[in-house]
Amino acid sequence: MVIVMQVTATDAQIKQVVNRIHSAGLKTFVSSDQSPVIIGLIGDKRMIATMPVEALDGVEKVIPITESYKLASRKFHPDATVIDVDGVKIGGGNVVVMAGPCAVESREQLLEAAALVKEGGAQFLRGGAYKPRTSPYSFQGLEIKGLEYLAEAREATGLKIVTEVTEVTAVDAVAEYADMLQIGARNMQNFQLLKAVGRAGKPVLLKRGIAATINEWLHAAEYILNEGNYDVIMCERGIRTFEEYTRNTLDLSAVGAIKQLSHLPIIVDPSHGTGRWKLVKSMSLAALAAGADGLMIEVHPNPAEALSDGPQSLNPENYQNLMQAVEQMTEFMAKLQ
Amino acid sequence: MVIVMQVTATDAQIKQVVNRIHSAGLKTFVSSDQSPVIIGLIGDKRMIATMPVEALDGVEKVIPITESYKLASRKFHPDATVIDVDGVKIGGGNVVVMAGPCAVESREQLLEAAALVKEGGAQFLRGGAYKPRTSPYSFQGLEIKGLEYLAEAREATGLKIVTEVTEVTAVDAVAEYADMLQIGARNMQNFQLLKAVGRAGKPVLLKRGIAATINEWLHAAEYILNEGNYDVIMCERGIRTFEEYTRNTLDLSAVGAIKQLSHLPIIVDPSHGTGRWKLVKSMSLAALAAGADGLMIEVHPNPAEALSDGPQSLNPENYQNLMQAVEQMTEFMAKLQ
Amino acid sequence: MVIVMQVTATDAQIKQVVNRIHSAGLKTFVSSDQSPVIIGLIGDKRMIATMPVEALDGVEKVIPITESYKLASRKFHPDATVIDVDGVKIGGGNVVVMAGPCAVESREQLLEAAALVKEGGAQFLRGGAYKPRTSPYSFQGLEIKGLEYLAEAREATGLKIVTEVTEVTAVDAVAEYADMLQIGARNMQNFQLLKAVGRAGKPVLLKRGIAATINEWLHAAEYILNEGNYDVIMCERGIRTFEEYTRNTLDLSAVGAIKQLSHLPIIVDPSHGTGRWKLVKSMSLAALAAGADGLMIEVHPNPAEALSDGPQSLNPENYQNLMQAVEQMTEFMAKLQ
Amino acid sequence: MVIVMQVTATDAQIKQVVNRIHSAGLKTFVSSDQSPVIIGLIGDKRMIATMPVEALDGVEKVIPITESYKLASRKFHPDATVIDVDGVKIGGGNVVVMAGPCAVESREQLLEAAALVKEGGAQFLRGGAYKPRTSPYSFQGLEIKGLEYLAEAREATGLKIVTEVTEVTAVDAVAEYADMLQIGARNMQNFQLLKAVGRAGKPVLLKRGIAATINEWLHAAEYILNEGNYDVIMCERGIRTFEEYTRNTLDLSAVGAIKQLSHLPIIVDPSHGTGRWKLVKSMSLAALAAGADGLMIEVHPNPAEALSDGPQSLNPENYQNLMQAVEQMTEFMAKLQ
Repeated sequence: MVIVMQVTATDAQIKQVVNRIHSAGLKTFVSSDQSPVIIGLIGDKRMIATMPVEALDGVEKVIPITESYKLASRKFHPDATVIDVDGVKIGGGNVVVMAGPCAVESREQLLEAAALVKEGGAQFLRGGAYKPRTSPYSFQGLEIKGLEYLAEAREATGLKIVTEVTEVTAVDAVAEYADMLQIGARNMQNFQLLKAVGRAGKPVLLKRGIAATINEWLHAAEYILNEGNYDVIMCERGIRTFEEYTRNTLDLSAVGAIKQLSHLPIIVDPSHGTGRWKLVKSMSLAALAAGADGLMIEVHPNPAEALSDGPQSLNPENYQNLMQAVEQMTEFMAKLQ
Repeated sequence: MVIVMQVTATDAQIKQVVNRIHSAGLKTFVSSDQSPVIIGLIGDKRMIATMPVEALDGVEKVIPITESYKLASRKFHPDATVIDVDGVKIGGGNVVVMAGPCAVESREQLLEAAALVKEGGAQFLRGGAYKPRTSPYSFQGLEIKGLEYLAEAREATGLKIVTEVTEVTAVDAVAEYADMLQIGARNMQNFQLLKAVGRAGKPVLLKRGIAATINEWLHAAEYILNEGNYDVIMCERGIRTFEEYTRNTLDLSAVGAIKQLSHLPIIVDPSHGTGRWKLVKSMSLAALAAGADGLMIEVHPNPAEALSDGPQSLNPENYQNLMQAVEQMTEFMAKLQ
Repeated sequence: MVIVMQVTATDAQIKQVVNRIHSAGLKTFVSSDQSPVIIGLIGDKRMIATMPVEALDGVEKVIPITESYKLASRKFHPDATVIDVDGVKIGGGNVVVMAGPCAVESREQLLEAAALVKEGGAQFLRGGAYKPRTSPYSFQGLEIKGLEYLAEAREATGLKIVTEVTEVTAVDAVAEYADMLQIGARNMQNFQLLKAVGRAGKPVLLKRGIAATINEWLHAAEYILNEGNYDVIMCERGIRTFEEYTRNTLDLSAVGAIKQLSHLPIIVDPSHGTGRWKLVKSMSLAALAAGADGLMIEVHPNPAEALSDGPQSLNPENYQNLMQAVEQMTEFMAKLQ
Repeated sequence: MVIVMQVTATDAQIKQVVNRIHSAGLKTFVSSDQSPVIIGLIGDKRMIATMPVEALDGVEKVIPITESYKLASRKFHPDATVIDVDGVKIGGGNVVVMAGPCAVESREQLLEAAALVKEGGAQFLRGGAYKPRTSPYSFQGLEIKGLEYLAEAREATGLKIVTEVTEVTAVDAVAEYADMLQIGARNMQNFQLLKAVGRAGKPVLLKRGIAATINEWLHAAEYILNEGNYDVIMCERGIRTFEEYTRNTLDLSAVGAIKQLSHLPIIVDPSHGTGRWKLVKSMSLAALAAGADGLMIEVHPNPAEALSDGPQSLNPENYQNLMQAVEQMTEFMAKLQ
């Protein structure tokens, strides 16, 4: 942390700031020969991060220098993490596709979707049994029944299951049925839930909040890692901006940023990211070209009948077409590097 | 809902859309003499809101027309709601101030703050016992111990207590100690928590999410109202924008917007809204001039020692100065109308 | 400027950065006893601001410390600037109202509007003769004819004239007719235009760009001041955010921020800021309560016939009602301080 | 345009709206059997777009349905536009790379950069002779001298020249030296400048404004097309969001969106889009995978000495490495389709 004093700060004010820091057991360096005076803090980073020095007299502003996440940081874990979900590897060059409907709507719909997803070559089946919805009057999901259908679809196809958990009290149930627990964008800073999935013994897919900075997102991952669960996959799914043509603005720069800052794998969800199925293929290819470790894709046997997110779901034909292109792009990227 | 067909849509595609709507028991009107063709939906609004027609062939875009919240809407409740918290009224011209430290740090700190808050003339003491924090290494709150201190402060001063609840499993405990339950910005779309506080039998202060539209915010209120709890107070606390000088951008237009769209009271939190104590007074006065039903203010006996949000907390002197101005502004606004 | 080196930076890399700075005639201080190493730059601020050190090996990030604007800064001009427009004072406690239609549409419309504006008590008549419009097919303004009508309205009413100039080649013409030149939001970083109005010998009203930070806005003012024109008035008119209920998000915190950072007066335009005439009164009062030096208001004799921005224009009755409230708020605020 | 009336609108109010529309020579359709009543407008789109009906009594909101740009629209020009710059084709499957320094700094720097750019295989040399800068104290460009160096570099290498023009009075001079005129992000809505380059007889590269919607961007293109210049290339260069890790958020979904909405080619500038040279390669590949018609890349013989934007410039080695990958990706994408 670096403290910038006001141009008009007095010697007494500077001394007060320095004393305050020393009293907390930290050391300082002071650049007294320039205006404004700058004071640096030296010592334990976690202690430094919690010093409320901005409220002291004469302080102009406080500039944080080091990030306070550690377990998620690439600095301390230079090698990319590879997550093994019963034989399916994610990260370190292993590209994975998770596909399926937005919501589990019925046994028939899910089994039909699962067969389709399997045929296309994806490794994971996605589908929500617990659906967070803006309106209390929208379809809220089949809950336990939905989990059972997901388990049945796994039996039928061999696909791994990834599904969202939205509350602490449902973590055990979802962990019993699913191979991977998904934290949705709205819950990225639901810290109790993050801690709970950190203790659930299953890999976690952590979606980025719609207004979360990359820094906050990595801190959310840190909550999970801090509970002893190192199998965390980041998922970029678009951020909220002023643009209205797309539902969100898919931030593909986040792929490279996460790779630089962290050792965790990152996949991309172009379905939620754009909200338009006609943009899903081009953004899927772009995500892989940017270096993403995989994709999460909405596909529905019949999008026009979907109970949620129909406009962004691929129909069977477009899904198969996408998967062929994904396969070729994955091969190409493997050779390019 | 209005469906705009593509300029190139065929008669068969138009017919398919109309049939799809009719099969759901809804009626349509079709403007066939203009290009593009426009199809309107008539019938139950909740059903209309869930029709995934955007995925049908030939559809250009779908435009929602009516909001799907109802209990929170002014259309159905023209009179302003007045909430009575054991004799303290909020809304309908009754202005309230909630003040106190960001976090309950110790018994001494809280009792000192409570005496200060009382002396200034506020009606509510605020203070977090459960603190949602970006980093797992930051101070997370005293939890039950903090609630006990809050209750003790109420005994000592007669102030009402408002404090945040961050998880479903803590709702009962917080409801036992507090007079009002606060839902923080990060939990505005934690729907399980909204339902839980909707059943807790205590008034709820609902903070706006940092990236929540006014429409989404009112839907979040609808979740609480839908459980039978009509004592909901909205709290504007700033939205996330590109501006960096302030911690958030306080959206005071939301005050007038909520008053037009809803019957619920709305208060403003300029401390979180700006992140700078030097802006708190001017934005407090502005909030009241905009028609807000109250303020939530961070005050700390010694901001430079605060464990969180020191830079935005008022010290005792500035708090007293603010309260005098607030009193005068409240009187002025009462006469103006 | 402070340079933060990478944790893994070598001594050679640190030395290279230091040498690069010294070779530019600047001095450094280096905190070598902490990780990461921090290098501060000492010397001429303008030179420091242009050092591309971020591209050097081993540099993690570069943090600017001092703003590079100087003439607009309060640090160097502690007293508030008061601008005198032929007897009408702005700033330093003098509140001004500029009102009128968005666009000059005809002689009759403008003269009618001017009489109305005068009667309500405003000091300035606003109205666009040159209209920047998103679409080339929208009404673009009456240009010179519009300026002549404005001059005629001044003759008839004694109101001062403020009107927008959108191109360098029109500056002389607009300066000949108007008492104050307005730079619109879209042109806030049209640097040639800023320089031109800086040399035009008339006060300038500088609107904030829809995506401009306060820092960039003050730099835009610096372009005008740097040409020798010190009569610059800032105008907050809303920034672009994700919120859709209002046309823009009016950032009233900018009022206090500009007052802290700069000596220049600042007024607020709630008409463009909200895009809804029903929010204009509450946000006008809020702006004055926040400390604004004035208001810019859209009023039209018949908003339903307006060629542009009808939805945000006040009709005569609402304008008179607003002006009465503004007068009372101005008196109240003068007594409060 | 569709008008949604208030739920409480009276028959008289509905009739007034209808009459107002009819008096302008437009037709209506009214859905009188639902609440709220909806009124559609039929007739000339440009006239419809300028009707200020939102200000009429009883109107809840107005929803635009058709875009008001026409020349830029794909609806009226289904085939992709291919622009031929003296033999170098852009669009319709022809991928182009424009590379060079941010600013022309000196004859030596530019000639060295040009040789490097040519060797890597790009077709265009970029470099600013007129530099729009936030601060008046930053380097503003060599102006005419810079244009002469660019022309000399073209002689020496055969590269085409693209360079920014920032003011109407400089259009002729820049058009004399350059093969393509660039409109920078800050000038995207400098309408006089758009009209001037529309008449200059040279292809135009139109960068997206940092807060411009895709819709506004296409309207800006419409200004140029409307002057008779059909050789317009769109350039996505990042939008302003809350994310701070990158300088801007590169919106690659805009590539697919522009392709759907318009026939104009679109290229991507990952250097400004990310502000970090370490992200340039991955985002370049992503842009091509998304379907972009080309790239604009900042490269500098010695980024650490650059007078502007050093942190985002590639050095010679990284540029050559990028160009090899770009060539392979271009080949791959050509085969994929």
